[in-house]
Amino acid sequence: MDEKRSGDRRDDLWAVVPAGGAGTRLWPLSRAGSPKFLHDLGGTGRTLLQDTYDRLEPLVGDRLLVVTGVAHQDAVRRQLDALAADHVIAEPTPRDSMAAIGLAAAIIERTDPDAVMGSFAADHVIADPEAFRACVREAADVARTGALVTLGIDPDFPSTAFGYIRLGERLADFPTARSVAAFVEKPDVETATAWVATGEYRWNAGMFVAKASVVLDLLAVEHPDLARDLRVLAAEPERMDELWPTLTKIAIDHAVAEPAAAAGRVAVVPGSFGWEDIGDFEALADLLGDAGVRVLGDPSLVVAQQSSGLVVTGERTIAVLGLDDVVVVDTGDALLVTTTAHAQGVKAIVEALKASGRSDLT
Amino acid sequence: MDEKRSGDRRDDLWAVVPAGGAGTRLWPLSRAGSPKFLHDLGGTGRTLLQDTYDRLEPLVGDRLLVVTGVAHQDAVRRQLDALAADHVIAEPTPRDSMAAIGLAAAIIERTDPDAVMGSFAADHVIADPEAFRACVREAADVARTGALVTLGIDPDFPSTAFGYIRLGERLADFPTARSVAAFVEKPDVETATAWVATGEYRWNAGMFVAKASVVLDLLAVEHPDLARDLRVLAAEPERMDELWPTLTKIAIDHAVAEPAAAAGRVAVVPGSFGWEDIGDFEALADLLGDAGVRVLGDPSLVVAQQSSGLVVTGERTIAVLGLDDVVVVDTGDALLVTTTAHAQGVKAIVEALKASGRSDLT
Repeated sequence: MDEKRSGDRRDDLWAVVPAGGAGTRLWPLSRAGSPKFLHDLGGTGRTLLQDTYDRLEPLVGDRLLVVTGVAHQDAVRRQLDALAADHVIAEPTPRDSMAAIGLAAAIIERTDPDAVMGSFAADHVIADPEAFRACVREAADVARTGALVTLGIDPDFPSTAFGYIRLGERLADFPTARSVAAFVEKPDVETATAWVATGEYRWNAGMFVAKASVVLDLLAVEHPDLARDLRVLAAEPERMDELWPTLTKIAIDHAVAEPAAAAGRVAVVPGSFGWEDIGDFEALADLLGDAGVRVLGDPSLVVAQQSSGLVVTGERTIAVLGLDDVVVVDTGDALLVTTTAHAQGVKAIVEALKASGRSDLT
Repeated sequence: MDEKRSGDRRDDLWAVVPAGGAGTRLWPLSRAGSPKFLHDLGGTGRTLLQDTYDRLEPLVGDRLLVVTGVAHQDAVRRQLDALAADHVIAEPTPRDSMAAIGLAAAIIERTDPDAVMGSFAADHVIADPEAFRACVREAADVARTGALVTLGIDPDFPSTAFGYIRLGERLADFPTARSVAAFVEKPDVETATAWVATGEYRWNAGMFVAKASVVLDLLAVEHPDLARDLRVLAAEPERMDELWPTLTKIAIDHAVAEPAAAAGRVAVVPGSFGWEDIGDFEALADLLGDAGVRVLGDPSLVVAQQSSGLVVTGERTIAVLGLDDVVVVDTGDALLVTTTAHAQGVKAIVEALKASGRSDLT
């Protein structure tokens, strides 16, 4: 047993939880001012952010950093009251995923130059946390060799909403890890169906594990200024207001994953742990059940007859009569009525509200 | 010109406006505590009750009595602030239409033994008030001969929601009045279609004109105690609490119209004045327009895309996406989502709420 292990933990493993994104397609439940990770979308009594913390805490204890917008830092600290307050890092303004995750990497590297970090979004749902943790543990073992390790999700269906990872050869010395033959963009449905049928493709859910120093060194290949500035910020946090607005805006997939792939340093650990990205109300309805009227909130507020779909309750009684696959979302200042088939179109409603000067509602 | 005429008025003509009925199929807009006649369903800025008053005032001036429940008398007086306060009669408890209209008849008879009264519900919509008044004027002329005169509405379509009047022979001395060949109950759609095609049938909207003394004398044929008690109450209103709970509960159609028909004393004045009974949300949607999303309330609160139907606004923004013939009714404590095709089923929602102990919402 490795000397760094302590029971179920490895003291070199950190978690980074980027908590951003308004979840526009979940309006009016999710807003810029109240993004989806702060909501209890599973009806479990815990928010997505809290579920994320609960899932990671057995792996990393307090070695967990949340990176979020200044507007949400207080809410994040309230929801994660067991987490040290300075483990919630506030971005002054959004500067894309590389700046957010890279700053966390630099802070971790400064605390422990050999640390391994995993990056896991705050708004994912995972049905089997133990299987997830087993996958992360193996990914961390692979990451200790210097690789950038993605988690490759066993696809439930030929989704067109995610990029895919084509599996390469098995890696020696690890139970399931593989090399990455290719990262491929979101396919059309025929392509997705063909890929899924081969058994050699996995969903890319954007979760990866790597040494913090490896993340920053890979970043330095193409963006040396950004890597340097992030390390400066970790050492001199008082320079945040000066440096943050000057950082290059770039997604971590492009800034780190592509150079790593070019250098043959990416790996994938396939996993099957009931992962879901609750991107819209159709996904939320599916999460909450198979049939009938599913309720998120207080079921005693809902009277439904001859109907199916999803009702998200607010403070009032909601009666639904004679509508299939309906979506009703009740909040204090806004109400949405649509169908699961139009779940993707909710974004256009939010855009229409913004265009008509009602950004206060978005 | 008759000596009792004064300009457009006839000083012997009174209006009685029974204002009752919760309008259950218009829940949650209409409630037991806030019935539909108190609402501006036409979006005109005047409530149905106020529209009824406005329509009758040119005919009767202040000779108008509203009979309503004790719970609504204050709201009725507030809405009809030009009407003398004692022209709003409060029923201590509901005792069906004969007691309500008969009490008004007895009060009118006591004021003017030769008076003619017309009874007109508080919750009807009439598109052409001048045509309506012309019809009532002719009905009053016929009523002065001692007849009980119904208004027979020219049917827009073969409705199965109303009883019908089969027209008899033309009456001499009147421009359009006819005898009544028969009152017939609500038909099925085939029967209604056949009747409408003949041109000899009219809708029975429950509006009638007769001398107040004729109403009470006809009532006395079958229900002498009830006729007597109503006349006692008109003379001694302080006996209301004693006598009212003992009055026979019976609908005026049975108590007066049937004996009158048996005696050959009923007539009908056919009319075409755009009458509508806004009984449910489908009727309300039709009233407000032909297509698209019709809004009752504040249109600036509604964002609709790829939708049609009816939205009744409350205090909040309502977004509707991808639903045809939808009905969304937003109030402070309850929300209804259904379709125009299910408009009649709203009653079942109200019953379900009552059954589950939520009568506070009904």
